[in-house]
Amino acid sequence: MSAFEALTVSTLPVRLGQEAAIRQRVGDDPSAWSVDEVGDGNLNLVFIVRGAAGAVIVKQALPYVRLVGESWPLPLKRSFFEYHALIRQAERDPGMVPEIFHFDEAQAIIVMEFLSPHIILRRALIEGQQLPKIGRDLGNFIARTLFRGSDLAMETRKRKADLALFADNVELCDITENLVFSDPYFEAPLNRHTPGLEAIVTELRADRDMKVEAQRMKHLFAAKAETLLHGDLHTGSVMVTMDDTRVIDPEFAFYGPMAFDVGMLIANFWMSYFSQSGHEAHGPRDAMRAYLLDTVEEIWTTFTIEFTRLWHEERRGILYQASLFEDRNDRLASEQALHGVIHDIWTDMLGFAGVEMHRRILGLAHNADFETIADEAKRAACETKALKFGRHIAVNRTRIHSPADLATLAERLEQEIVQ
Amino acid sequence: MSAFEALTVSTLPVRLGQEAAIRQRVGDDPSAWSVDEVGDGNLNLVFIVRGAAGAVIVKQALPYVRLVGESWPLPLKRSFFEYHALIRQAERDPGMVPEIFHFDEAQAIIVMEFLSPHIILRRALIEGQQLPKIGRDLGNFIARTLFRGSDLAMETRKRKADLALFADNVELCDITENLVFSDPYFEAPLNRHTPGLEAIVTELRADRDMKVEAQRMKHLFAAKAETLLHGDLHTGSVMVTMDDTRVIDPEFAFYGPMAFDVGMLIANFWMSYFSQSGHEAHGPRDAMRAYLLDTVEEIWTTFTIEFTRLWHEERRGILYQASLFEDRNDRLASEQALHGVIHDIWTDMLGFAGVEMHRRILGLAHNADFETIADEAKRAACETKALKFGRHIAVNRTRIHSPADLATLAERLEQEIVQ
Repeated sequence: MSAFEALTVSTLPVRLGQEAAIRQRVGDDPSAWSVDEVGDGNLNLVFIVRGAAGAVIVKQALPYVRLVGESWPLPLKRSFFEYHALIRQAERDPGMVPEIFHFDEAQAIIVMEFLSPHIILRRALIEGQQLPKIGRDLGNFIARTLFRGSDLAMETRKRKADLALFADNVELCDITENLVFSDPYFEAPLNRHTPGLEAIVTELRADRDMKVEAQRMKHLFAAKAETLLHGDLHTGSVMVTMDDTRVIDPEFAFYGPMAFDVGMLIANFWMSYFSQSGHEAHGPRDAMRAYLLDTVEEIWTTFTIEFTRLWHEERRGILYQASLFEDRNDRLASEQALHGVIHDIWTDMLGFAGVEMHRRILGLAHNADFETIADEAKRAACETKALKFGRHIAVNRTRIHSPADLATLAERLEQEIVQ
Repeated sequence: MSAFEALTVSTLPVRLGQEAAIRQRVGDDPSAWSVDEVGDGNLNLVFIVRGAAGAVIVKQALPYVRLVGESWPLPLKRSFFEYHALIRQAERDPGMVPEIFHFDEAQAIIVMEFLSPHIILRRALIEGQQLPKIGRDLGNFIARTLFRGSDLAMETRKRKADLALFADNVELCDITENLVFSDPYFEAPLNRHTPGLEAIVTELRADRDMKVEAQRMKHLFAAKAETLLHGDLHTGSVMVTMDDTRVIDPEFAFYGPMAFDVGMLIANFWMSYFSQSGHEAHGPRDAMRAYLLDTVEEIWTTFTIEFTRLWHEERRGILYQASLFEDRNDRLASEQALHGVIHDIWTDMLGFAGVEMHRRILGLAHNADFETIADEAKRAACETKALKFGRHIAVNRTRIHSPADLATLAERLEQEIVQ
């Protein structure tokens, strides 16, 4: 195992030029490869390597957080977890993640499919694009990956071995545990927020019910090792065209509660919703807002339909065994159990979503949806609505029953009928 | 590493005679040791080794389930998990588990303190002994081990490493997953029950709400990796004198929900309660019944008092951090969070307790409390009450609020006011 060395645009062809899997896809003459560094994420180096035969993505982890620098070390093994998550997701929902061509554990390098002409979903939503397939694709993706990675479907011996494997992803879990669930609710050093939010920030940090609920969600996140999560499933982790959807960047993968991926994903659509009024320079976004609420509903509906199908067709794990229900001709018992499971995911999803909305506005890692609104007063107004929405759904999560309830609430906040 | 070989009374002194830690406690001349095999459990060999200097217990796992035979293989590594659980429990509640003198992983041998004149708690309860300290000792034991093994107290990196370590205890988890949560609710081959129970067994196996609830508890058991559990904490895993209480046999240890240990422990006191009328040949057991209900209440009360003390004094983990509550002078938020945690343990404990009561009467591993009632009709009557109690508390677990409610219910069933 050679010592870790960060790739550069000039060293990359030399270092990877002998890999048959890459030469096959880029071209046999590495000296003719063109390499661009395009990483705009918080953590890693990302290169596009182009040649006569085509192009690939080369992603390399760095031993620190790129966004912060060497003062915040972060282990290279996150690349190992990303690789292992990607191959599992590819099995569980084929075609929804980039194909992997090469993995070098010691150098923390993953070489994968170059997605083109895909763009980041968050960017598309900021631009006001209505993508017709994402509700279905993402709803199916969460249903399939969450169901098939759990004791509902897996042989429990394999699930427990996988749980142990991913339990070592400590440092990335630590980021979520601190930055998502705790930092937003007190004056943590890494926090920042838009000027103008001071009053509501003070209010939220004194909000006992919200703080306790956020910590209850953290308890669930840390303790409920239910399935292999993506772990960072926001709209910046999805690449899209009008007819293709791909999920990328699962380095936060670990065994956690199903509701976490669901809640984080949906929260990012609600943030997009509340950010739209900051992007109306080229025309109103009413149709875009309606599209976003419809998409949330479509994600949830697709998720429940596909989860239900898998429940009936692939429930071969140790939980809710057919030997107790269907095999005894009590199909209604199976439905009763299914409703319980989906009800719990729904309830917990709202808690995770509310917390995600807070941390993206008050914590370290902000969303381009809001950040690209240049007018600070306008941005603060958008963010205020999102903060209020997040607080409401997290604290009232046991009393809200449908995406339609939430759409109505979002509209009333947006129209300032409630404030 | 030498090949595994089961100890016998004659080979034991030869094989362990050179271990200084044993010679020191038994005597320097192994040829003068006297060895008795006393294992009456379901799984292992247990020897008492006596000599001039004293005595020790030698426990050796076998590569199969002793109760069933070689047709049911069970890996030796359970001895490794027992050892690791014992040393953690000794740290978390000093003096409550036997002291370990020697561990041989390859031979699956643990040499430990010989507890004398201790007897198994279950035996004492069958005999009608009222032990004055067990409520406090066991309440403190569960509070301390469950709290201190969780993210409430541990450094989360260490907890996650421990979670991964114990995730390999697959085969013993599998026993619980099948024998406790599923087998009692259908005609599983290993089941047996007292003649006369046919009607209620049919009723329970057709009881949709009960079966779904049992599977929900299984889901929680398998997914909520909250703390290091004993994993088999019944009254047969406790040794007592009038003034000493020790917990033994944690080979089922793994990371699971706090409520599991609590519920299994308390369920065994309720089973003792309902079995008492089968042991009244030498006089009535009214005082014993009152003692058992008081003990359940004392276990729960002690648990909550000690858990609360630890919450305030040792809550240094990642959950419910003081930085969000006490440090911001919002002590009431900390109390609110604590009530939420204890409420959840209470609610889930009732579910686990109900299931434990069913499996001990309908499944493979029965309790001496009932088994020692020779009169089958009398035994069936006792077991029927326990089955009904278990069903009631599991299905209504969100609506029952105190040990006093449960004591009243138990008394009404016992007196056949409700049937």
